[in-house]
Formats: sequence, C-alpha cells, structure tokens
Amino acid sequence: MFRPTGFAEKRTLSVNFSLIVKNAATKVKKAAMKKTFIFFFILSRLKKTKFFSLNFNHSFLEDYMRSTAWNDEENKVLPEMALDFMPEEKLRDLQLQRMRATVKLAYEKVPLFRERMDEKGLKPEDIKSLKDVAKLPFTMKKDLRDTYPYGLFAVDLSEVVRLHASSGTTGKPIVVGYTKEDMDVWAQVVKRGLLACGFRSTDIVQNFYGYGLFTGGLGIHGGFEALGATVIPISGGNTERQVMLMKDFGVTAVGGTPSYFVRIIDVAEKMGVDIRDLKVKRGIFGAEPWSDGMRDYIEEKTGIKAYDIYGLSEIVGPGVGCECECRDGIHIFEDHFYPEIVDPETLEPLPDGEEGELVLSTLSKKAMPIIRYRTRDITAIEKTKCKCGRTIRRIRRIGRRSDDMIIMRGVNVFPSQIETALLRAEKALPHYQIVLDTKNNMDTLEVKVEVSRDMVSDSMSDMEQLNKKFKHSIEQILGISVIVTLCEPDSLPRSEGKAKRVIDNRKKM
Amino acid sequence: MFRPTGFAEKRTLSVNFSLIVKNAATKVKKAAMKKTFIFFFILSRLKKTKFFSLNFNHSFLEDYMRSTAWNDEENKVLPEMALDFMPEEKLRDLQLQRMRATVKLAYEKVPLFRERMDEKGLKPEDIKSLKDVAKLPFTMKKDLRDTYPYGLFAVDLSEVVRLHASSGTTGKPIVVGYTKEDMDVWAQVVKRGLLACGFRSTDIVQNFYGYGLFTGGLGIHGGFEALGATVIPISGGNTERQVMLMKDFGVTAVGGTPSYFVRIIDVAEKMGVDIRDLKVKRGIFGAEPWSDGMRDYIEEKTGIKAYDIYGLSEIVGPGVGCECECRDGIHIFEDHFYPEIVDPETLEPLPDGEEGELVLSTLSKKAMPIIRYRTRDITAIEKTKCKCGRTIRRIRRIGRRSDDMIIMRGVNVFPSQIETALLRAEKALPHYQIVLDTKNNMDTLEVKVEVSRDMVSDSMSDMEQLNKKFKHSIEQILGISVIVTLCEPDSLPRSEGKAKRVIDNRKKM
Repeated sequence: MFRPTGFAEKRTLSVNFSLIVKNAATKVKKAAMKKTFIFFFILSRLKKTKFFSLNFNHSFLEDYMRSTAWNDEENKVLPEMALDFMPEEKLRDLQLQRMRATVKLAYEKVPLFRERMDEKGLKPEDIKSLKDVAKLPFTMKKDLRDTYPYGLFAVDLSEVVRLHASSGTTGKPIVVGYTKEDMDVWAQVVKRGLLACGFRSTDIVQNFYGYGLFTGGLGIHGGFEALGATVIPISGGNTERQVMLMKDFGVTAVGGTPSYFVRIIDVAEKMGVDIRDLKVKRGIFGAEPWSDGMRDYIEEKTGIKAYDIYGLSEIVGPGVGCECECRDGIHIFEDHFYPEIVDPETLEPLPDGEEGELVLSTLSKKAMPIIRYRTRDITAIEKTKCKCGRTIRRIRRIGRRSDDMIIMRGVNVFPSQIETALLRAEKALPHYQIVLDTKNNMDTLEVKVEVSRDMVSDSMSDMEQLNKKFKHSIEQILGISVIVTLCEPDSLPRSEGKAKRVIDNRKKM
Repeated sequence: MFRPTGFAEKRTLSVNFSLIVKNAATKVKKAAMKKTFIFFFILSRLKKTKFFSLNFNHSFLEDYMRSTAWNDEENKVLPEMALDFMPEEKLRDLQLQRMRATVKLAYEKVPLFRERMDEKGLKPEDIKSLKDVAKLPFTMKKDLRDTYPYGLFAVDLSEVVRLHASSGTTGKPIVVGYTKEDMDVWAQVVKRGLLACGFRSTDIVQNFYGYGLFTGGLGIHGGFEALGATVIPISGGNTERQVMLMKDFGVTAVGGTPSYFVRIIDVAEKMGVDIRDLKVKRGIFGAEPWSDGMRDYIEEKTGIKAYDIYGLSEIVGPGVGCECECRDGIHIFEDHFYPEIVDPETLEPLPDGEEGELVLSTLSKKAMPIIRYRTRDITAIEKTKCKCGRTIRRIRRIGRRSDDMIIMRGVNVFPSQIETALLRAEKALPHYQIVLDTKNNMDTLEVKVEVSRDMVSDSMSDMEQLNKKFKHSIEQILGISVIVTLCEPDSLPRSEGKAKRVIDNRKKM
C-alpha cells in the first residue's frame, strides 16, 4: 500500500487540560459535571491513541459510541464531536504537519504542482509555519480540466476506489478520485456535520440529493450511513412519490438541494399533505447558495429546522463544512481542510473577519491532494467564537459566488440578492428566474416571479400592485431598474437538483 | 443489539479433506500443487474460525486477501471464493441450521408468518430436515404489499440501516429493509459473483444500473466496493457521456441492464467509437431476462464477455446468484439463499432437473427474513455439477417469468422467445416492442422491429423480404401468426433502466 513518508506524525500530544476545562465551561449548562468528566475522559483517551497521526483511526471514537451511555439526547457533546473542540493550538500544529505532508505528497507525485513550485523556487521544506502557506501556488478549476482525467492524482489508480465527476454538459468534466481512506474521511466529516445539526442514528432519513457522479447524493449518503441512520436513498425525481414515502415511512429527517425541497413542499400542498403534520424534524441542505429568506420559507411551511452543509467536489464533496445548532456560520472541518480568505483581485491573504474569496487546501486527501483551491465563493472567516464552543472556525454562509455574479450596466448583481428581495416583499413561493437580454442595444434584467395560488387575483390592479411591490423591493437592493413579470402558478421549470436561476440571452459585444 | 437465539451455531466442523481434494483435482489444470496447497490452507483456517456460525465474520477471509500472494490472475481460486466450494454435506447442514433459525426468527417477530404457521399447525421445531421446508407456507408479492411498509420486518427500525422500494408507479411500492449485517452479506454475495465472473480489484468499473430506491444500482455498487475496484457510479442516462467516460477513464468492466448497454453500443457507433477498441473486457448484466442471442449480440459488437447476475429485491437485490466463467447456469449463493423448484399449478416441490417456478428463502437475513418466496421465474435446478467445481447449485438462466407471460389465443408467449427469433433471423439491433391489441374482436400480436442503418434499403422488395424473414422466424417459434412492422432507426423508445417490451391494448372481456 502506498503510504507517503511524513504522513505518520508519531508524537503523542501533551494535552492542555486547562484549555479544555475552559472550553467545556462555556458550554456546560445542564449536567455540567457530567460533561466535564466526559471531556477529560475523551481527551485522556485521545492522548493514548496518538490521534494526531494522519493515518488516523477514528475507531477509538466508535468504541465510545458503542457504550450507549454517551449516546443520549441530553448530552450534546458526543465523542465523535471531540475533534470539533480540539484545543486551538493543537489544531494549528496538526494543520501545519498535515499541510507539510500534503505539499510533500503533491510535490513528489503531481507534475503540475511540482512545476509551479519550481517556478516559484519553492521546496516543500520551505513551509515552516502556516503563514508560509500564502507562498504556495493556487489551484484553479481550469487546472482540473487541463489535467483531465487523472493528471492531479497522487496515487496509482489501483489505490483509487471511487471516481466522481462534475456534470459539465459541454466538454470534458472535472474528475475527482478517492482512496479507501479518503472515503472514510469523507463519511466522517459529513457525519460530524450531521451530528452538529442534531441528526442521530435513530433518524429515518430521506436523501433526495441526486445519486450518481455528482458528489452530493453519495457523499451525504456516506455520512448518513456512518451515522447509522435508516437511509432511504430515494435520489431526485418523482416528487409525488417523495411526499408519499415521507409520510408512509415516518421520515424524521431529509437531505437535498433547497430548491428541490421547495418543489416537494409545493407538491405536498397540492396533494393535501401538510409536512408540519409529519414526523420530519430537520433537514440538511446544500449544493447551491440559499438565502436566509429561503430558510425562513422552508421552516414556516414545514415546521422543520433547516441546516446548511457546505462543500465542493474539488475538495471532497459535501462535508467541507457544516452549520451547528447555533446556525451562526458554517464550521469548516479544519483538521481535514485548511481555509484562507484572499482578496479576489490581488490574491493577497485577508485577515479573519474580512470578506473575500474562500481558498481551501486538503490536509489529509491522498488520491488527489489539492492545494489552495480558489473556490470563487465570497465569504469571510468569522473572528468570534461560536456559542457551541467548537474551536474549528466558521465561515459566513455563502450568498455569493464570483462565478454567479451578473454584471449589469456596471453593477454586480447576485441571484441570492434577488431571492432575498422577493421573499422580503412577499412570502411568495420562491420560484423565480432571471432572464438577461439585450433590447435596443441596452442590457435588460427581467425577473420572472411565479405567484402562488393564494396571490392570484382577477383584479388587474391587485396584480399590478404585487408587481410593483416586487419591483420596488428588488430595485432597492440592487440599485438598478429591473423588469418584473408575474407568471402563472406552476409555469416556471422546476429543478430536481440544483436550480437553474439565470438565463443569459445578452448579445456579446 | 438484537441477536436471535439459535443463530450462533458454535460447533467446529470436521472438514472432509478427501472431498476437497477431489473438488480441487477437477479444477486444477495449471499449478495443480499450488492450488491444492491453498485449499488445504484455507480449509484448515476455516476450521479454526468456526465460520459456520450465522453471525459469521468474513474478515478472516479478508485477512488472506491482504497477503497479495493469493491475489494473482493465475490463481483462480481466491480465498473469498472458498464458500462457493463448501463440501456439499456441510453446506446442507449449514442450510438446515440457518433455515431453522430463520423460521424461528420469523415466527417470533412477524405476525403474518406466525398466523400462517399456526393455521397449518406448524411450529419452528417441526423443521427437522431440509425436506420439511416443503411444509412451510409460501410468501407472495401480495404479502409485501399488504404489510406495507414495515409489516414483515423482524427487527426494530433502529436496527435497519437501509430501505429500498420497488418502482411501482401506481399504488404503494414494495419495501425491503436491511440491517448492517444484511448489508454486509449483500455486498459479499455480489462480490463472490463478480469474482466468479473474473472481476478483480484492479478493475475500473462503470456502473450504469440506476442508483436510488431500485436495488440494482446500490446493490452492485456495494459488491464493486467490497471487491476494492475503482467504481464509477455513473447511474443511468446521458448515454453520450457514458461512452465518452468509458473511453477517457480507461474503463475495464461494466455493469447494468443489458437493454441499456445495447443502447450504449448504439450511441457509441453513432459517435464513431468502437467499443472493441476500448479497454472494456467484461460486463455483468441483470435486472431483466435476456436471451443467449442478446449475449451473442453484445459480445460480437463489443468484444467483451457478458455475464448474468440474478436477484430480486424481495430476497436481497442482485447477488442471489451469478454465473461463473463457465456460463452454464447461475450459481445460487446457497449459504445465504435456499432455492426450491415447485410446480406452478400444484405448488408441489419438483426434483432437481425439472422445470418449474423458483421459490427462494433467505437463510441469514435479519431485518426481513423471507420464507419460500414465489419468484414467478420459470427455471430448473441443474442436476449436474458445474465444471468450475463449485458445490453451490445452479439454476438455468431465466428466460421466462410467469408474470411476463402473454396468453395469445390460448398460446403462452414470452417476450424472450420473440427476442431469440429476431436475433436468429438477422443480427438486427435488438430494439423491439410487442404491441397487443384487439381488432374486429380478435386479439393481435404485433412486433415492432427497429431496423439498423445498414439494413435500410430504398428497395421495397428488400424491406418486404426482411419483414417476411422476421415474421417467419417468430411464427416458427411461437406457432401463432403475428404482424411484423419494421420501424425507422431510432424510432422506438429507449430505456435507461429495465426495458418495457410489452404494450397491452387488448380489450378486457
């Protein structure tokens, strides 16, 4: 088996117990002594297990889970979550070691990375602190296309147990590969995300992410399986059946794209099923940006709690980060993924708290180590600690991707801004589409908004009123004039995966 | 954890080495001594490991795999295959013990089964030999519908880690559940099937079975994963992309429904890709009956070896049985599934060699033990030993399901007979559809046959000739008159999963 040198950090940690106690203290409300005891117990075991090696084995944590004493609803700090609460100093140490090992692996095995390092006159040994990471070359989506299919793989194909690919309908897709260990890490990070959002092994989960080459479906599936939940791998499509099974199977939790869940809500209403009456209590949503307004809409309509999971195929798929029950930003699983924020123009690193482009490096991936990947997602790393007590840092929820940005008469417009404006104006069905066009040599932005059945009125002036309300709300946020067109209920195309929000018919100059 | 009593058979086997040597001797061609040594070695280890317990752990076999000495192409008898070659007497012992445990579990936990046993005045203890199995009540598809969704489950839902369901578009689907152990058994039987057909961990496999609630996609996926192959979970659809990735990714093996693979062949031709030039060497096909003519067609067009895998969701999904490299019938994994053949009218058991309806019982399933399930598949258990030396018995490949049977003017017609007739008349594209209708109060059977581009001719008489050829070939096999209609290339609907071959527009009396 291939095992890169440098990956086995053998030293046993001297755990800083005082920090742990402090951490624990902030979280403990009920059963304080119990939790503190648990923390000491976990940490003392972690010490023995040398868990800071990269080939690190989560099985010692699973041993704890078997003792059902840990696994109760009252005790929010389950042993599997321990890694989310690692003392910060130790976390940085771990990140540095893993970053060095990853850079060494990529330098030795990936020609493109070696060339770029050589161009800069850099050697893996030059990475002496996390600050030095800023010296490393970036990886772009184009690099994945240019090396199609296996050019960025750092192991022999016989070590690769899974391939996934982007859905790119034109041209060659982006290909990603995983070793058996990479698959285990992937399942574990998704599981940690699910646990942080309150999912438990007793849940009956309906996974309507699309299964296939897309990392969403099988990625979340792996996390649900690792959690030990009852998994219904329903995939996308056949929406009436989704509603029927949600009801008949006593589903307690769901996962998928938020836009498809909105469609399920819609169809359930038509079928006379009120999701509030069902057993569904929580949902994990991702694979596309979704606004807080969309969250409010989903929660009001269904009575569930909706959580955001973040990820991208180039890094691992879903599970790079996830909200916790505080829902105050997305925790990045920093022991496996290293986040930075850079200025999208100058590419200079920005300090925590400042908004810019998220850049991610993998810290444990073997099949395909990715260094400083430019995600195009615009966000900031939060400076403050989360109330949950996790030491792994948070990013702000992604509302904007530089890829999605529409430049309209010199103004930057993001679809999520329009979504927010619509939901602010009226608790409309969040079915909308943005059509860009050129009329009389002038670029136009039209927002088609589908009205719900309750809103439909025979009175022309009512409908005009509604139109004005939407138009005003959008123009206030964007600062440019837009055309609003109201559409019949069910007239806009529905998505069974990621929603397609923007149609660009503009004349290219 | 729930562990039914009676499931742990503790006695260590006294292995009959002479039988093993005899078995081994028939297979050994090259490297005879090596294989014999391996056999003794495996069997001596099996003895120590008490592998005849139901909660039995395959990990000892996996230990062998880690020693790469076993895992070479020349050595066809890999350790994981050992269970396929179990001494027959021991296999029957194991089956009896597991059958008794399964009956006990179902009697204690499944009300419907208990009622039926009570009606017959039967107790689990009455099953004293495998002959007594014939006394047990049957299970029908209707029973699964009537107990929707969880009525046949023998464990608490918290033990169930996976649900699958039939695609039934009308009404309630059939639901099946799996514990963690059931999932492991499922992956292991599929893996044994793949190994028997020559698949290896070094394969790069494209799985175009549909992923989702259908057991085909995720079932085969689990076997590929257990094998350690590089899995491309592409699912169905987007056929041009299937061809592109098959080529670009250096795919060595494929899995899916045969009808969809025929479509892939078709699209590849249009794209100018000759699959014979690619690295694909073998394919595993199932989920619908397919004729030997279809196999010949696939193999001639692609140069691959095509193998048949058998299964049904009610029992486990794909992996109930599989061909071996001899391709002389489907080996049933008899240590987990117990096959019987009954007369479909009288329901009396038939001896090996005689044709009737296949009835299957699960021998190790915990979430949903199924006893004497009437599969509707018409086949026979072969009396002779397979040349491969496997002791697990074979059934004839399924050509006919009593469900698929069309009764046309008193004659029984099976779609597979028409497929055979078409492929015998002409190496046509096997795209056809059977339309039943009533005209002038007379039932008609029309076979729509799509002609390939090479066959299309401007000469009317050529086309008439072709029509006659098909008509004659079909009528010779069926013994009734049929209407043949030739269709344009690409005019018949294509399936991305199981093909829909029969459209019945007949007037019901």
